[in-house]
Amino acid sequence: MIRLEYGCALSEIELDSVIPLLKEAHSKLLMKRDSKEVGFIDLPFEPVEEIRKLAEEKRKHTDALVLVGIGGSSLGAECLIHALDKAENFYVLDNVDPYKVASVLDRIDPKRTCFNVVSKSGGTTETIVNFMAVLEVLKRSMPWDEAKRNIVITTDPEKGLLREIAQREGIASLPVPPNVGGRFSVLSPVGLFPAAYMGVDLDALLMGAKKAVDWCMCESLEKNPAWLIAALHYLHAIRGKNIAVMMPYCERLSLFVSWWRQLWAESLGKDGKGQTPVKAMGTVDQHSQIQLYNDGPKDKLITFIVVEDFGRDVKLHNHLGIADFHYLNGKTLSQVMYASYLGTASALAKNKVPFITVKLDRIDEAHLGALFMVYEFATAISGYLYDINPFDQPGVEEGKRLTHGLLGREGYEKKREEALSLASTCSKCLIERRL
Amino acid sequence: MIRLEYGCALSEIELDSVIPLLKEAHSKLLMKRDSKEVGFIDLPFEPVEEIRKLAEEKRKHTDALVLVGIGGSSLGAECLIHALDKAENFYVLDNVDPYKVASVLDRIDPKRTCFNVVSKSGGTTETIVNFMAVLEVLKRSMPWDEAKRNIVITTDPEKGLLREIAQREGIASLPVPPNVGGRFSVLSPVGLFPAAYMGVDLDALLMGAKKAVDWCMCESLEKNPAWLIAALHYLHAIRGKNIAVMMPYCERLSLFVSWWRQLWAESLGKDGKGQTPVKAMGTVDQHSQIQLYNDGPKDKLITFIVVEDFGRDVKLHNHLGIADFHYLNGKTLSQVMYASYLGTASALAKNKVPFITVKLDRIDEAHLGALFMVYEFATAISGYLYDINPFDQPGVEEGKRLTHGLLGREGYEKKREEALSLASTCSKCLIERRL
Repeated sequence: MIRLEYGCALSEIELDSVIPLLKEAHSKLLMKRDSKEVGFIDLPFEPVEEIRKLAEEKRKHTDALVLVGIGGSSLGAECLIHALDKAENFYVLDNVDPYKVASVLDRIDPKRTCFNVVSKSGGTTETIVNFMAVLEVLKRSMPWDEAKRNIVITTDPEKGLLREIAQREGIASLPVPPNVGGRFSVLSPVGLFPAAYMGVDLDALLMGAKKAVDWCMCESLEKNPAWLIAALHYLHAIRGKNIAVMMPYCERLSLFVSWWRQLWAESLGKDGKGQTPVKAMGTVDQHSQIQLYNDGPKDKLITFIVVEDFGRDVKLHNHLGIADFHYLNGKTLSQVMYASYLGTASALAKNKVPFITVKLDRIDEAHLGALFMVYEFATAISGYLYDINPFDQPGVEEGKRLTHGLLGREGYEKKREEALSLASTCSKCLIERRL
Repeated sequence: MIRLEYGCALSEIELDSVIPLLKEAHSKLLMKRDSKEVGFIDLPFEPVEEIRKLAEEKRKHTDALVLVGIGGSSLGAECLIHALDKAENFYVLDNVDPYKVASVLDRIDPKRTCFNVVSKSGGTTETIVNFMAVLEVLKRSMPWDEAKRNIVITTDPEKGLLREIAQREGIASLPVPPNVGGRFSVLSPVGLFPAAYMGVDLDALLMGAKKAVDWCMCESLEKNPAWLIAALHYLHAIRGKNIAVMMPYCERLSLFVSWWRQLWAESLGKDGKGQTPVKAMGTVDQHSQIQLYNDGPKDKLITFIVVEDFGRDVKLHNHLGIADFHYLNGKTLSQVMYASYLGTASALAKNKVPFITVKLDRIDEAHLGALFMVYEFATAISGYLYDINPFDQPGVEEGKRLTHGLLGREGYEKKREEALSLASTCSKCLIERRL
């Protein structure tokens, strides 16, 4: 079960005022779906037999997985695998941090490792660079014909350099549907292959997502969680709340927040609009951020996520023998977590800080599948509420071009000069101190 | 070497206009130091022999460390130990998430584990609760007289329940100076004992911090990095930039950002003031947040941290044989990291997004010690610029009281009723969907 609760600050009349906008946004989204421009809603209904088979085949001769991919190509799978506690022998090479890459490559046995190289375009710099580092290690440890068997490429079905390599070298590959952007691709082969390899139940995951599609198709603010999430964020954003915090009271949802943070920022941060998503964790951030949330500027809408059944629990005994702590005797950690959430939320309510609470029965495939779909839907709807295109990301291109220039890529010579000149104006004022 | 660079958006005249305020803030801080109300500046000059000896003694009969503490009692040590890659057999029980606590307690051998229980007040709920869970495991595995030898308590030198327990049971203990708040305590026994246990070089760490105290005592905007950081944040904050992003291009600094995030939020988020600190990571967040930073609202000041020497490197070879990637041949991952930072920063400059760059020669004890002190100093100075007290946290108390009420603590019965009534008003509007 997924339950959404909200109370503070907005009246029903204010909420209802968005319904006409929601209807418009909804029909825009469905038009895009019908014309096959937007594919994420259809993903849970696609067959997964090919993905599952390939994962089983690779499992036969390998026992660790290195996912080479960044952003939308890694966060969804990482979130799933960590939330379900299946991350033993699972590594991600997203960043090109040399210390991290070298440490991961030291730790694995290339002969017994499957490398899933994921890039929709097939040309993401970090992914190509880390693929090069992986190939160096693979080629040193076995003949190329054998090494190839340890690679799975996930990329565009026809275009791009990774597709070219897969075809030329006969490397196993999976397609990223062209109408699904990276940040919406967790339920495509991008997320599903690593999930299947690490033992995630794809059927349960997609079942949850399918149910969520049903909920999100309802044109009703009382029934559609995506509408409610979009409406609440929109109404608070236009009232000056430019920060959206997500604070689960559950460590295993840490990477769900990272996944959502990309979805929200890249989809909605454009044309001078967009809330900044902020990652938090209960109870830890009660001792770090709650001072600011309670007593700082009223610029935030907070989303709590609480979980009913953690799957494990710990019962407390007052071994300390201190009278002050007798009230904890016999309590469980789940109870302490829930009371901490409720105490924190109540204090925020008292301070007129608005929040939404998402309650989940437990963390399993079905709940995660439903959460992914609800938030994808809510993000797409939000984009149309703000009158922007939630599916592009024009603001990342210039940085890439300038980086290509700095790395000496052919055709980017002018960009190199431009980057160096921009950089020099940014070090006008400086302090240098020696240790 | 530590180098600060800044260029965009503010003129020298604007910067210079803050100097009188900085001088005033500086003298307020030094008065607090002289009257012994504020102790963090003096920490690097304290002797550490006792801490080092205790760590060596515990190392003789244990080989893993569990740090039981939350917020200011854990983040500093975690940051140090992870940044220096000394985290093998190091665990933190900060959160009371039952799944996580049970998993950590499963993994360790209590007989061979040292438990450092850290709480300045001696009564932090999470820490007491996790201490109870630890005691259950310890008492089950060996007689209490032996088990006690595996515990080190770090708390107030005289007051509080943990001090009472340490004295009554004869458990080894270390003092938290009463004039040092949790978030400023990394260079006190709070951070130093776990660091020493895990093999961090305390002398080098404190040497870096001492040098930074020298820098931060200079009353000059051209020489004092804390003044420059405080001035830039202040000037941007009063111009509507309510978000401060910190984005290192170095994975090992991930927890430094978590440490800073608490320092900044808890110290400065009060009286309706305070920038919201946001944690980011380069290059990963180029694929997640950079769209928003470039093209979203102009509500952010960004701090990049770049590292010259990562300690390890990886050289690239174009095994892919694709002409488009020949420009990467022979390059190193360090070069790709630096070019990615510079390309990203240049694009932001083009979009008039202001940023500061902190450049470090390398990640070692001395640089971390200096960084801690510079940011602590900058935060304290910032507090006085905003005319608030950077050393209190009044906004966290109410949530604690409401939580005590919900958990049935004696004397908090009214708070329980209040929390339940507040909570009920926050679930007025709800959607419930079954999976």
